[in-house]
Formats: sequence, C-alpha cells, structure tokens
Amino acid sequence: MHFADPLLLQSGASLRDYSLSFETYGTLNADKSNAVLICHALNASHHVAGTYAGQVKSEGWWNNMIGPGKPLDTDQFFVIGINNLGSCFGSTGPMHHHPDTGRVYGAEFPVLTVEDWVTSQARLLDALGIQTLAAVMGGSLGGMQALSWTLQYPDRVRHAISIASAPNLTAENIAFNEVARRAIVTDPDFHGGHFYQQGVIPKRGLRIARMIGHITYLSDDVMNEKFGRQLRAEAARVTHDASPVSAYLYSTLEAEFQIESYLRHQGDKFAEYFDANTYLLTTRALDYFDPARTYGGDLSHALARATCKFLLVSFTTDWRFAPKRSREVVKALLDNRRDVSYAEINAPHGHDAFLLDDARYLGVVRAYFARVFKEVTA
Amino acid sequence: MHFADPLLLQSGASLRDYSLSFETYGTLNADKSNAVLICHALNASHHVAGTYAGQVKSEGWWNNMIGPGKPLDTDQFFVIGINNLGSCFGSTGPMHHHPDTGRVYGAEFPVLTVEDWVTSQARLLDALGIQTLAAVMGGSLGGMQALSWTLQYPDRVRHAISIASAPNLTAENIAFNEVARRAIVTDPDFHGGHFYQQGVIPKRGLRIARMIGHITYLSDDVMNEKFGRQLRAEAARVTHDASPVSAYLYSTLEAEFQIESYLRHQGDKFAEYFDANTYLLTTRALDYFDPARTYGGDLSHALARATCKFLLVSFTTDWRFAPKRSREVVKALLDNRRDVSYAEINAPHGHDAFLLDDARYLGVVRAYFARVFKEVTA
Repeated sequence: MHFADPLLLQSGASLRDYSLSFETYGTLNADKSNAVLICHALNASHHVAGTYAGQVKSEGWWNNMIGPGKPLDTDQFFVIGINNLGSCFGSTGPMHHHPDTGRVYGAEFPVLTVEDWVTSQARLLDALGIQTLAAVMGGSLGGMQALSWTLQYPDRVRHAISIASAPNLTAENIAFNEVARRAIVTDPDFHGGHFYQQGVIPKRGLRIARMIGHITYLSDDVMNEKFGRQLRAEAARVTHDASPVSAYLYSTLEAEFQIESYLRHQGDKFAEYFDANTYLLTTRALDYFDPARTYGGDLSHALARATCKFLLVSFTTDWRFAPKRSREVVKALLDNRRDVSYAEINAPHGHDAFLLDDARYLGVVRAYFARVFKEVTA
Repeated sequence: MHFADPLLLQSGASLRDYSLSFETYGTLNADKSNAVLICHALNASHHVAGTYAGQVKSEGWWNNMIGPGKPLDTDQFFVIGINNLGSCFGSTGPMHHHPDTGRVYGAEFPVLTVEDWVTSQARLLDALGIQTLAAVMGGSLGGMQALSWTLQYPDRVRHAISIASAPNLTAENIAFNEVARRAIVTDPDFHGGHFYQQGVIPKRGLRIARMIGHITYLSDDVMNEKFGRQLRAEAARVTHDASPVSAYLYSTLEAEFQIESYLRHQGDKFAEYFDANTYLLTTRALDYFDPARTYGGDLSHALARATCKFLLVSFTTDWRFAPKRSREVVKALLDNRRDVSYAEINAPHGHDAFLLDDARYLGVVRAYFARVFKEVTA
C-alpha cells in the first residue's frame, strides 16, 4: 500500500512517498473487531503464514502459530502481517529510490524507531478501515512493537501479546548489536552505505553479524546438545581405551567443529538475502527502544498509558531477552492494575524458542486467543 | 632462552631453532624446591609482575597477585613468568623468520596445542635445572596449561592452581572463537596470514575479535552497572517529568551509548599491538584442549594420571568458563581421591574477575600458597 502523506519520524526527519508491504489471512468480520496485527523481528517479513502456490520453501515465518485451526486461528481472526519500513522485503527501505533525488537511499535512509514503525502501521489500519485491533502480537523486536502500540494507541488495542521480549536492551544486548554493526560498517565493500552503486555487497560483515546473532539466539545447553564438540572430519584413530576418535585437522582456517560449519552456513545464507543498511537500522531501533527513558527510567510510570489486556511469554533459557526482562514489564503493568497473563515456558532453545514448536507455549497462546475471540464476538 | 633441539608438536609438525621469553622473580632456593610457573591466557605475556624501570605503565598483568608480600609471595617463591610459543610478545611466533626459508612464518607457523606449550615449558625448566615445580598456576587458558602439566608431567608438579578455567570449551565458547577468527581471516588485509609482507595489518578483524572477546569477559550485570544505557552525547531535553534526558543522535554509525565507545576503544587498542596470526592459533589451542577426548569423554579416567594437589577457583558470574566447568574438574579429581581445594567466589565481574582485586579470591590464593610454602620448606 502506498502512502502519499509524509511520515514525521522521531528523529525529526521524515519519509514521504513510501509503501508498506502486508499480507492478510482470514476474513475481517462485519464490525471489524477481529483484526490481529503481527509485528516482525530482525530479519522477518509480512509473510507470517502459509505457503505461496508452487513455492514449497516459502513457508511463513510464524506458520506454526498462525493459520486455520492454529493457535492464532485464521478461521476466527483477520490476521495482518506487516513488513516494517526500512526492511529489505518489500516496504520502502534503503535499497529504494529517494523520491526527491531519484538516487538509492542507502545510508541516507532515515534512522527509524519502534515508535515510527507503530505510527506507520496505524496508518495502514486507517486505510483498511480498522479502528481497533483485537490484538497486536510479536516476538522479540516484534514484542517491543506490540508494547509500543499499547502506549501510542491505547484506544486502538484490546490485547497485546509480547513474546520473548524486553522493555529495553541491556548493555550486553547493545554490545552484541554494536559489534555486528561494526563488522558491516568496516567491511570495505560497505562504502559508507552506498555499496549498491558500486555493485558490491558487504558480505563479510553480514556473515559476521549473522554468526554473532545466531550465538545469542541459542542457549549454551542446546548448542552443546546439537553440536557439542563434534568434529566435521571423520578420520578415525585409536585411543587409550581403543575407541576410535577423529583426528584434528590442526588448522585455524578450516571449519574443524560442527558448530563452526553451522555458523558459517548461517552467515553465508544470510549475506545472500539480507540488506546491510536494513541490518544497521533495525538493530539501532532495538537499541533505542526504551519507553521508560523519558520517565526517569520508571517503567511503571511509563506503562500507565497502556490500558489493554496483556499476555507475556518468556523462555527459561533465553539469555538474550531473559524471563526477568518480561517480568519487569509484568510488574510495571501490575503496578498499574492492568489485566496481565504471563507464562514462563521451560524450554531449552534459548531466544529461538519463540519461533519453535513447543506444546505448552503454543497451548498458552491458543488459550489466550480463545478468550480474545469470546470477547470480540460477545 | 634459545632451544636448538626441534620440538615435535601434537599435529605432527615440528618447530626448531625457537626461543622462549621468560622473566623470573624472587630467588630459587638451594634445593630448587620453591619454583612456581605462571602460565598466561590469550593476550598476556611472561611479564606477570612488577614494573620496568622508567616505564610507569609497564605493570605486569598479574601484579596484584605476584610480588613481595603478595598472595604469591616472591620473597618466598621463585616465580617464572613464561611467554607461550606463537605469541607476539617475545617467544618465537608467526612474525619471526622460519629458520629453513628465512621468510616470515605468517600463516605457516604451525598450529600449537596446550600440550605443546607445556612440553616447551618443561624444556625451559630442564635448562634452569628445576626438576619439580612447587606449583604451576594460571587463569583461563593458563589454567588449562596448569591442568595439562599435571597430566603430562605428574612427577614434576606438587601443586596445580587453575583459576576461572574449564576442562574443555563448550560449543558456545568455540562459536565465539570462530566468529572472531572469521572476522580476522576475512579482513582483506589478512592476505591469507601473510600480511607482514604487504605492510598491512588486518585491524578491522582484530577490532571485531577483541570486541566480541570483551563482551564474553564481562558479566551482563557488571556491564549494566558500569555502562547501562548511558549515552555519550550530553545534549539535554526536557521530558514528561521535567527531568533532563540526553537526545539520541539517531545514527547507526556514531557511537551513541557508552558501551559502544568502550568496546570500540578496546578494539582499537588491541589492533595496535596484537598479532592476528597469534590470535588465530591461540584461540585454536583453546578449542582443541580436551584431555578427556581420548578417554571417550570420561574426565575422571583422563585425570587419573594427575597425582599432585589442586586448588581450583571459579567466579559466580563467569559465563565464559562458568563455575560448573570447574566443578567438573573437581569431581573428576575427587573420583580419583586427589587432594583438591575449591573456591567459588561470589564476584560480579564475570570472567575478568580472575585478574581483578577481590579480597576473598586473593585471600584464598594467599592461604593456599602459605600451605605450599610450608610443604616445600618442611
């Protein structure tokens, strides 16, 4: 959908003549009360569920969560998957042309915030004629958007579902983002963000950024279970107890351990499809998000504006956005006597758990949406 | 000290015509029973204590631990600080010339293991006429060397002190090493490890490697306490509660948060003095260390060879080498009915704690060395 009115951003800059990519699933009911907006995290898109005809590998990123008969049931709800501004998957972003200059934005694309994304999403709802969302839902950075919706448009959200998220980043979170950004920015192929004109892509930096990211998405335990110290090479030699053991390659350049080839593969894949400028601005939006900031750090005070009902979910082994971060939000909402449900799921998979099949997790969301459906159809 | 005999390495390669840099502190007693060997970690050297005359900033890296009247008292012990082979601080390493070809080793420098370092250290002791160490001590990678001493030369060590260490790396540990190595190796200035001849240094990669390392040396808590979400910019604006708050720069390139400038500074410093090939081979030695490997993963079986007495120390917030890793060693030693002391220090500083002043930690080491001194002078 194209938007002709300029969007004033938190930074003071503005975007005009921009488009938002979105997909919808299910049917909007007569009183337009069953719409659920899905906000995405770092590297996802508006394609949240289903598979495109003839494209076997085109499964939506939250396809285990959203669809007919699934926890968020598209037979009951009208689900909107939206792609954030600045993304590289359809909505206006750094690889598009600046309407004033005709040149590719590149590094000139304005820095966006979570609040800016929410503002742009509200305009899409206006255009769709949807005044009030039955729910807004997201995981990780998507969960921050869901929280921000309740603060920016408290009257337009009945339920907010924030999964594996946090009220802001810790110093360590920012640190990981910063190392990833430096890897991209100092790649000679970055060219100050104007690499498109040079016909190159800062793939070295993107690979490093993705490898760092992947480490923080998994728990130490699940990494040990999946990869442990397993080697790639299979050449066996006999040991003290006569059991065969693979010989080391004794190389600093070859991938010796399974975890190394896994990370390299993830990095290579990512560098093929993700945009470097999108990576920079998306991680920056994460860094900046901090609704308590202008309230002297008082989250309870900051969340007083939120009036909707909440479901928060966290995962025990998520060390990127640990359960204690979700509990900060729960506490702040309870301080304001809000209606809050909270589930802390005992899952081994770290931050990635929010995208994976876990019966208890999916069950919690299913039960919550059953309640939402009762409310909107009451 | 120069060594003319070739050193056969675990990889099957060998090093000949090599030198080891070392420093000694205190006086070797008549029966040569008071020698303590200090093994260093990733980026340290043989300069463990004291300050060079006229060089104010030349303090040894373990100067709070070692010296006259300190926990390891150089009025009582003869302390040897040794620099590992492959280092960039004096001992033969990648920036030295291959004796056969006359060319700088660079990437041709052989991959070393913890066991190789210990073998080379034993030769130094031979040359110094020291048959038995009162103790071998190290932190982190140095602690692995101390452990390996007890397995390779059980008759030459009376006490081993291993601090903030582990019996091997986890998949996550290896993953962080691998990302750091890829950052170096994919830096266009690396030139396959032969950057010396090109007159360049892969500083981009070294900076990223160091930034990643620093994140893993600190605990999340201490990072929040030291840096939190503090900004660099001081431009104030008025907020909801009329308190001033710094304005964001809205930049993905500028260092916005204090933690970012701290990490950049650490990366810049490191890239000025540390050698890229040394970084690669030192992290690889960490990856490879795994004494239980040839015993089917049975650490108790592997440590049966060790006959000396042990002190192990770990720190509660160390997530790089967590206390549970030290406890694995303690358990394996107890399975063999060895004499083991173990202290788990409640310290906020993460892995870095082993280098910092902590009264309980230093007190534990002091008490242990008082016992060692009694034994060697009995």
